[in-house]
Amino acid sequence: MKLPSFVKMVEVGPRDGLQNEQQPVSVATRVALIDKLSNSGLSIIEAGSFVSPKWVPQMAASEAVLGAIERKKGVTYSALTPNMQGYQRALEAGVNEVAVFAAASETFSQKNINCTINESLERFRPLLQQARRDAIPVRGYVSCVLGCPYEGNISADKVAEVSAILLSMGCYEISLGDTIGVGTPMAVYQLLEKLTTKLPVEKLAVHFHDTYGQALANIYAALQAGVAVVDAAVAGLGGCPYAPGASGNVASEDVLYMLNGLGIETGIELRTLAAAGDFISTALGRPSNSRVARAISS
Amino acid sequence: MKLPSFVKMVEVGPRDGLQNEQQPVSVATRVALIDKLSNSGLSIIEAGSFVSPKWVPQMAASEAVLGAIERKKGVTYSALTPNMQGYQRALEAGVNEVAVFAAASETFSQKNINCTINESLERFRPLLQQARRDAIPVRGYVSCVLGCPYEGNISADKVAEVSAILLSMGCYEISLGDTIGVGTPMAVYQLLEKLTTKLPVEKLAVHFHDTYGQALANIYAALQAGVAVVDAAVAGLGGCPYAPGASGNVASEDVLYMLNGLGIETGIELRTLAAAGDFISTALGRPSNSRVARAISS
Repeated sequence: MKLPSFVKMVEVGPRDGLQNEQQPVSVATRVALIDKLSNSGLSIIEAGSFVSPKWVPQMAASEAVLGAIERKKGVTYSALTPNMQGYQRALEAGVNEVAVFAAASETFSQKNINCTINESLERFRPLLQQARRDAIPVRGYVSCVLGCPYEGNISADKVAEVSAILLSMGCYEISLGDTIGVGTPMAVYQLLEKLTTKLPVEKLAVHFHDTYGQALANIYAALQAGVAVVDAAVAGLGGCPYAPGASGNVASEDVLYMLNGLGIETGIELRTLAAAGDFISTALGRPSNSRVARAISS
Repeated sequence: MKLPSFVKMVEVGPRDGLQNEQQPVSVATRVALIDKLSNSGLSIIEAGSFVSPKWVPQMAASEAVLGAIERKKGVTYSALTPNMQGYQRALEAGVNEVAVFAAASETFSQKNINCTINESLERFRPLLQQARRDAIPVRGYVSCVLGCPYEGNISADKVAEVSAILLSMGCYEISLGDTIGVGTPMAVYQLLEKLTTKLPVEKLAVHFHDTYGQALANIYAALQAGVAVVDAAVAGLGGCPYAPGASGNVASEDVLYMLNGLGIETGIELRTLAAAGDFISTALGRPSNSRVARAISS
């Protein structure tokens, strides 16, 4: 039972977390959140998204956010970029890294981004070529890796295929998303066992939502499979306050508590991270979704 | 990575769950909860506690509860019994099984039940002798197995010692409690690895509280160590509504969802179990602590 000695946590709260808020969060609050997060020792923070504000009004003004944060040395500030236009905007806003996103489910791809998986991948090709010229690292998200709300089961082969294409196009890392949170630990372990026969485990990250409370157990299974990069959102941001069952991201504090307990280094300080979570929970006017945060602040 | 093919879930919601409620729950509600639980396929339900109502007013009238439930064939109704007097009351109330409780921490034992660990064990000796004559199975709880609020770390040797004594005195099973929820999966695995060098794994159960969100990951680690009995409380009962950080039991629905995903048989039907959780959450006037319950009812 060998676990990685170091895990890189990728903080996605300011983007994947806040993009689901009914009431878009102000630029000032987003900036303050990111600055508080960057004090915790996190090495990478997804700070915004350059998709059309028509589709995701919560991520409008990502330029303003990236323009106002206090950049901390050693911290990578990244953003989601759906296409060349978004990429150019992100670059002008001064991101250090971008992320592209595809699905492992054909139906989800159609419903979510209105094109086939292959069309979405082709759309990223010029972006990845330009990013290479600009020396900007690109992260690839693959969604629905453990299940799709429309198709149900998704084959590991499809996940491997989409991931391999993104890597071959130049992504430095693939974040495997259980978008609807349906996975359980053995499914995670078996998926990773299959993927790592074809792809280097060093290039794989896991991105879990805690819809069914399985995220930490799934992360533990991923660590056992050798994965050493874990996405999380402070305070478990990402759930919709008006739909209690909606899929929040796993809480960064809870992940860090587990990693600390496992003796795995992260470079992140729990109290400072939890303070960032307290800040955004207060700003949103609701209790944190992090059990660790609730336990240590009570 | 071999997991058990069958797991016995021990439902502790009506006892360990409800004993922390600020406002004691009525007999009628406790009875209705137990009857709903017994329809789900659970084979054992901890239905009450025969401790002094001075100390735990929430469990007063456990006789009335046990007298009013509709007994379902194949379901064991158990109760906590601190001493011979409690045991006699439980027996008169018609329990099929009783449970005794000791701590692996000397200080916790003193503060919680006002005697040393050895004194508590000696107190159980006549109870266990009588139970053998009555052919009543006795379960043993050991608390603080992964940490104590007063002493911090607790040695695996101490856990093994207390567990071994309870088994030698006649307990058929030891439920290892992470009372304050501080454990993480590798600590669970390593504790069980040590215990199972001295004790048969078939006689060990795990009892986790989700204070820090670690319970499911810890249960997964326990399954990997061969444990096949898991305590849980429907709706994650056991947290105090007025202290959000307080230590709720892991939610039975979330455990069952994971076991289902792992392909482990339990004999329990998730929807029926969740309906019992919905019932008690509505009765308590607050949302369920089970993420699965919130996801499937939204």
